[in-house]
Amino acid sequence: MMYRSPSKLAMVPFVSVENMMNIIRDIGVETLLLELSHYIEEDFKRWEQFDRTPRVASHSDVGVIELMPTADSEIYSFKYVNGHPKNQAEGFQTVTAFGVLSNVNNGYPVLLSEMTILTALRTAATSALMAKYLAPKSSKVMGMIGNGAQCEFQALAFKKICGVETVKLYDIDPAATEKAATNLRDLGLNVIPCSTAKAAVEGVDIITTCTADKRYATILTDDMVPAGVHVNAIGGDCPGKTELQKEILQRSDIFVEYTPQTRIEGDIQQLDKNHPVTEMWQVITGQAEGRQTADQITVFDGVGFATEDFSALRYIRAQLERTGHYVELDFLADPVDTRNLFGMVQKYTG
Amino acid sequence: MMYRSPSKLAMVPFVSVENMMNIIRDIGVETLLLELSHYIEEDFKRWEQFDRTPRVASHSDVGVIELMPTADSEIYSFKYVNGHPKNQAEGFQTVTAFGVLSNVNNGYPVLLSEMTILTALRTAATSALMAKYLAPKSSKVMGMIGNGAQCEFQALAFKKICGVETVKLYDIDPAATEKAATNLRDLGLNVIPCSTAKAAVEGVDIITTCTADKRYATILTDDMVPAGVHVNAIGGDCPGKTELQKEILQRSDIFVEYTPQTRIEGDIQQLDKNHPVTEMWQVITGQAEGRQTADQITVFDGVGFATEDFSALRYIRAQLERTGHYVELDFLADPVDTRNLFGMVQKYTG
Repeated sequence: MMYRSPSKLAMVPFVSVENMMNIIRDIGVETLLLELSHYIEEDFKRWEQFDRTPRVASHSDVGVIELMPTADSEIYSFKYVNGHPKNQAEGFQTVTAFGVLSNVNNGYPVLLSEMTILTALRTAATSALMAKYLAPKSSKVMGMIGNGAQCEFQALAFKKICGVETVKLYDIDPAATEKAATNLRDLGLNVIPCSTAKAAVEGVDIITTCTADKRYATILTDDMVPAGVHVNAIGGDCPGKTELQKEILQRSDIFVEYTPQTRIEGDIQQLDKNHPVTEMWQVITGQAEGRQTADQITVFDGVGFATEDFSALRYIRAQLERTGHYVELDFLADPVDTRNLFGMVQKYTG
Repeated sequence: MMYRSPSKLAMVPFVSVENMMNIIRDIGVETLLLELSHYIEEDFKRWEQFDRTPRVASHSDVGVIELMPTADSEIYSFKYVNGHPKNQAEGFQTVTAFGVLSNVNNGYPVLLSEMTILTALRTAATSALMAKYLAPKSSKVMGMIGNGAQCEFQALAFKKICGVETVKLYDIDPAATEKAATNLRDLGLNVIPCSTAKAAVEGVDIITTCTADKRYATILTDDMVPAGVHVNAIGGDCPGKTELQKEILQRSDIFVEYTPQTRIEGDIQQLDKNHPVTEMWQVITGQAEGRQTADQITVFDGVGFATEDFSALRYIRAQLERTGHYVELDFLADPVDTRNLFGMVQKYTG
């Protein structure tokens, strides 16, 4: 017997990995990054409307599984994301993710989406968005230390959103640099592979650190950072994982997403709990200054925040009609008489 | 271009509402309730192996959306569940739910399932399991106050698991009683619709209260509860929502799932914070006594706990091969080279 869901609301649109890639293909990755940065910016502008619940982490010896919920008065979202540094050696992704968007008014989910790819996109869009406020005007050259999974997304986001023309690449594993350089070939960027970190940051306007090392590492030393540079530090994103030498932070102006979270997860976990930082929503709303002088070193200590996932899911939801790349899942039991759940089951199974 | 996931692990089995009903049909609802109660019992027996995170609630003026995570050393689970009392009047379900089971070792989800129906099943299986330890031996007659969505599942669970032969039904809305009586016809129970709550609990061994009223209600008054009865109180399950007159609790032995949660959500929110209660895992493992005398009044103040959802998802996962009722979703991006996420997207979209 065919079961017919009586309500359209019982069906929830699902964006698979393949459909996420179809959406990217239709829109174009650079346009998508730009549009996505607008969604993220809009939501940072109304920061105070969000319910900022801390993420809920379940730790094991080998990794962590986290739920990251947030909501405004109309939409609720959460992301499921794992982090297992040992996965790569075993042939699995270090990080996988999916997310759900729901209607606050009735609690019904309205979107289920893969977020492994989407997180990569939103992280890059967020970095470039913040650089619009923090990097030197007309930055053209970016040095990138760490050429792993996030590298190319960052490069294209900075090209589209900030006007970067040249990227200098360095990774402790030359194969990673080669992979990134190959992928970025013919995408309209000058790509310069470098054999040292020092060479990769020489003469640049922006330095992006996105390494995967899960420990207190010193990817960037103080002598490598001249006055006037913007540092986009996104690899130091969990307790015990940092990238910048402490001295860099001490002579920089530091910008974060959400202070309580970044104090624990970001590069500033190396600093005193009272070290001054500025939250980016304040800069984006004009309540605080971003870059003020040409000599200033600015650091965006990015760790990823739940509202960025909210914005990303909201953006993807808006693309469903535009692109048609989703399927509907029979996700919610919705009997005609809401008190008669058993009757629905009985009618179907009897 | 067809995208081919390189890894079987990139695919996640999904149990839709329709497939949940197919599983119920194949196994039979009573057998399923019995088997499910065994899974729940096994997990209560190893209670101390679980990570008991409090549920994460996002409240709005009209309802709540909750995430309920838990884990042992091998499996992680969470349930998404909403509660919107005003939904019914608007033609939506008050409660909808879905859940995910993941591998702790690598963080990969291994099951996505509808849980609106599954929660109804696990709630009934839990109640009947607890009654095995708490109700008078050879209980045959159960009175049920509240004949909504949970009623028939409870009736069948108590029939199969505890040997109940007769159910007496009462609801303030006679249409609900009629619905339940009609659904339970020909399922091997004597069904006696009653026109007052008093009549429904007269001469019974077990009283089940499962009303949906969201306030401090007094569904069951002290004079209705004679010595020796077991009270299965499952409708008082959130702050501000209770069913039992306080005096009943004061002369009963009270059993709960997880004390910190039940103090906030259960009927015992009416009592002093130090009022003695016994956790059911202690009874199930033999560390505490359940029913000790024929005269004792026992109350199971059930609010639903994350391990029960864990058990239910674990049970459904075990039925996938047995029944074949699932589809695989292309849920996790899994590039051949884990560092080359961009390359996977580029190859597909290019």
